[in-house]
Amino acid sequence: MVEPVRIEVGLGARAYDILIGPRLLEQAGAEIASRLPGARVAIVTDENVAAAQLPALQGGLEKAGLAACVIVVPAGEQTKSFSQLEHVVDGILAAKLERRDAVIALGGGVVGDLAGFAAGIVRRGMDFIQAPTSLLAQVDSSVGGKTGINSPRGKNLVGVFYQPRLVLADTAALDTLPPREFRAGYAEIAKYGLINRPEFFAWLEANWQDVFCGGAARIEAIAQSCRAKAEVVARDEFETGDRALLNLGHTFGHALEAAVGYDGARLVHGEAVAIGMALAHRFSARMNLASPDDATRVEKHLRDVGLPWRLADVPGGLPDAEALLAFIAQDKKVSRGALTFILTHGIGKAFIAKDVPASEVLSFLRENRTG
Amino acid sequence: MVEPVRIEVGLGARAYDILIGPRLLEQAGAEIASRLPGARVAIVTDENVAAAQLPALQGGLEKAGLAACVIVVPAGEQTKSFSQLEHVVDGILAAKLERRDAVIALGGGVVGDLAGFAAGIVRRGMDFIQAPTSLLAQVDSSVGGKTGINSPRGKNLVGVFYQPRLVLADTAALDTLPPREFRAGYAEIAKYGLINRPEFFAWLEANWQDVFCGGAARIEAIAQSCRAKAEVVARDEFETGDRALLNLGHTFGHALEAAVGYDGARLVHGEAVAIGMALAHRFSARMNLASPDDATRVEKHLRDVGLPWRLADVPGGLPDAEALLAFIAQDKKVSRGALTFILTHGIGKAFIAKDVPASEVLSFLRENRTG
Repeated sequence: MVEPVRIEVGLGARAYDILIGPRLLEQAGAEIASRLPGARVAIVTDENVAAAQLPALQGGLEKAGLAACVIVVPAGEQTKSFSQLEHVVDGILAAKLERRDAVIALGGGVVGDLAGFAAGIVRRGMDFIQAPTSLLAQVDSSVGGKTGINSPRGKNLVGVFYQPRLVLADTAALDTLPPREFRAGYAEIAKYGLINRPEFFAWLEANWQDVFCGGAARIEAIAQSCRAKAEVVARDEFETGDRALLNLGHTFGHALEAAVGYDGARLVHGEAVAIGMALAHRFSARMNLASPDDATRVEKHLRDVGLPWRLADVPGGLPDAEALLAFIAQDKKVSRGALTFILTHGIGKAFIAKDVPASEVLSFLRENRTG
Repeated sequence: MVEPVRIEVGLGARAYDILIGPRLLEQAGAEIASRLPGARVAIVTDENVAAAQLPALQGGLEKAGLAACVIVVPAGEQTKSFSQLEHVVDGILAAKLERRDAVIALGGGVVGDLAGFAAGIVRRGMDFIQAPTSLLAQVDSSVGGKTGINSPRGKNLVGVFYQPRLVLADTAALDTLPPREFRAGYAEIAKYGLINRPEFFAWLEANWQDVFCGGAARIEAIAQSCRAKAEVVARDEFETGDRALLNLGHTFGHALEAAVGYDGARLVHGEAVAIGMALAHRFSARMNLASPDDATRVEKHLRDVGLPWRLADVPGGLPDAEALLAFIAQDKKVSRGALTFILTHGIGKAFIAKDVPASEVLSFLRENRTG
């Protein structure tokens, strides 16, 4: 058995481990029992993940004598709703779990966000464990404590900051992912390089094919990503400061997701972030903040791995620049009406830019809509 | 104008003031604007309180140039539900409030619990202000950050710990309370004396009539109560330790509320707590933990002020002792199946008793059901 990589998220009394490695679900019982002695557990998962991964997790829990009830939700973004939240909360209460029992989220970002929110509010907070099964969840959404659901008025508008007690990233689970989903998750890996780890971005440029093939390079890329995220979260748990850097590519990206009506057939989150990151670099170059060569380098890497990188890559077309700007202004990372973007001085040199003039963004979108 | 009493809840970076005094709602705008410059606000209130108090608060906000939208919910405990939570959350989002805008809860415990929960989850936490208008809310539920709603499986089973930025206890609002409701709130005042302030309990025995009449003694009693609660909350924000002392009278009390089906016509929360406190003292005496004289003194004071103090005082009768014990065991303050009670070594000497034998509680209930 390969020893898993262990990364600590340094949050004082609430510090926790991220474990990364193949077949970790089979060891889940032992890892949980040693951290939460005596806890009972409820597993929250979706229909698809239940078929692929639930037996491994249940087997792993049984080996340690852990009893678990299972709460299954529908797969897909619509599951991040008040009605599914109520369903999960009721399932946890029906199992008569107490404060020091644990909720395990087995699945991708949707399951993690929903189950984490439920764990954060049942009895004003139960223990919570993330068992992410998608690449996106392993390198991003399972770490850092953001949980929540969507509102008809926007994505992720309702939720809590609630840290897990443990993250179990079973890299063997990734072998069952569709290639498009794996690729989309890769965009968030590249993001950490672009924010403040230029050497990691260079390593990805050289090694991305090995990351896609699996094995040691994949584990290394996931571990580097989790380390990068853990560092930011430990510094700024509640996003009052530079945690916002993690939104690189997300302001443009969210606007694109909204513009296609969150139609995953056209654009999934990681793809939107890929285009958003390329745009953030190109816009920074246009504002004379960064070299155009860096923007070109980012675009090339995204293109090499098969990710979309420009507005023209969104299938089915986009609304005009004015409409895109309106979607950007609706994004929740708006402070007192000013536009805030994550821009960059070059690869690995991202920064928070407040008061970005809307007129510049509009001109930029006009120039690039046809590009 | 009388200068309000100011009490600080010492929670480090999240410390906040409780202001207590007559006609404070009329100064709300100035108090809020000085603490949260530039914030916009949403007022959450119920139909009854809106009629009695909303004009004063709106006037107070307007004087400081603060724009406010109003979200009205039905009065009553059933309002602490998922559907009303969703309604309030949607109202806040519809008003396009941002993280650093504020939600004001204007009302009693129901409104405070619901609005605080909503404020705690919209955009993962907005600023929040309590403007309690019932005695119970002023001395108990508005201070300390417990928020939440009920589940069909039990009261307050879903919520978050979420501290307000300010508590504005307008004592003039109490003049419109029905006497029964004022008296029920008084039970929570007496509780602070019984927990660990014997001299405050003695003061209440001597001065309770003045407290009921209003004026300086009432403000003093409210201030002492808030001080007592603030002290406990600062020490143990998340109820991992002696914050549980605040549940004195509540384990018996919650069981009684459940036993009458939460029928406020028969028993309101403060009345249930009054009986619960008398029972906790009598049970402690029976277990040879405290003097029977102290139990008698508690019973006498509750009787003097017109509160119920024994099981026989519950109108309409109660189920048998076995059924009452089952309600007690259902209470959420159960840890791994053991019965936890707040018991006492005498007036002002409450303590947390774990592993209280259910058989002793059952015998005690049998003896007292007819008493």
